[in-house]
Amino acid sequence: MKLQLKAATSPQWLPLALSQLDAVLADHAHCEKKAAVNALSLLQSYPEVPGLPALMARLAREESSHLARVLAVMESRGLQLSYDFGDPYAKALQKLVRTPAGERRLDRLLVAAIIEARSHERLQLLADGLEDADLRRMYAELAQSEDGHQELFVRLAEKVAPTEVASARLAELLTAEADIVCSLPVRPAIH
Amino acid sequence: MKLQLKAATSPQWLPLALSQLDAVLADHAHCEKKAAVNALSLLQSYPEVPGLPALMARLAREESSHLARVLAVMESRGLQLSYDFGDPYAKALQKLVRTPAGERRLDRLLVAAIIEARSHERLQLLADGLEDADLRRMYAELAQSEDGHQELFVRLAEKVAPTEVASARLAELLTAEADIVCSLPVRPAIH
Repeated sequence: MKLQLKAATSPQWLPLALSQLDAVLADHAHCEKKAAVNALSLLQSYPEVPGLPALMARLAREESSHLARVLAVMESRGLQLSYDFGDPYAKALQKLVRTPAGERRLDRLLVAAIIEARSHERLQLLADGLEDADLRRMYAELAQSEDGHQELFVRLAEKVAPTEVASARLAELLTAEADIVCSLPVRPAIH
Repeated sequence: MKLQLKAATSPQWLPLALSQLDAVLADHAHCEKKAAVNALSLLQSYPEVPGLPALMARLAREESSHLARVLAVMESRGLQLSYDFGDPYAKALQKLVRTPAGERRLDRLLVAAIIEARSHERLQLLADGLEDADLRRMYAELAQSEDGHQELFVRLAEKVAPTEVASARLAELLTAEADIVCSLPVRPAIH
């Protein structure tokens, strides 16, 4: 099972993100925080999935480490972390998670995989588009990490449902995600 | 401001914990998870406290790392992580957190400091009481970490309230914590 996003990020996004990098960094910090929280929440909810607790503990460590790194960049630019009012992209995706326990477990893993894939795409765009050498390197490294995370969630999804079921649901969610990405306004934010 | 617990753990606790170490490990994993979640929650709630976001991001990374370590020990013993139904100790302490925003912020930091102090005491008891050399070393290292964490939370508490206010509230909470610890049954668990 391979995850391939169905819509590329708008070409308007990168110029906007580069022109308002402070806003992007603030949103990025919250994205890393939410990724760490989500990893711990999945560990809390699904300890029965073989290998999931250990993978999620390591993921929470890694995302917290990324969070600390983004906060350090923010501090060096004199920026303070703001409140997080949630992002419309993640909220729209969370609404696609079905309620019954089995479907919910599969959907939560697939949605996490898709968010990681979209994060990877955007962090890579930043890595390629930034002029500052330190920030380019950081974003290249973080993009690489997110790419590994999407595979991790796809593998876990295959453990909780037959491959054809997981694959069909992934295709549905990817179509929905493309609609969400294309319908939301372009913002100076990771999502 | 110095945090000193007002009641030592019952002498019945260590023999019980050593005789049911598998149960202690399972509870310990959940404690580390809750500590990581709490760090991220404090970062989410109080980004305005100078230094708090960076400290909480690093703490979440460290607690997630401890969680991974405890899970690895559990795996080596053939143990699977169970569901977490919460522990009566933490629940009783959370009830002491006052509602108004300013008091709530101070209390959450002080309660976190007290839980770290109690964890430190119990992990150190395990480090001193265990026979297995690897486990002794792990618990000694983790106890050392928790000791640093209590100081970190005390310092943050002093940033959000005048020292005499923080100090008086800490004394009240420590008295209440001693009552809670003495009234709860002794369990094969960190708390």
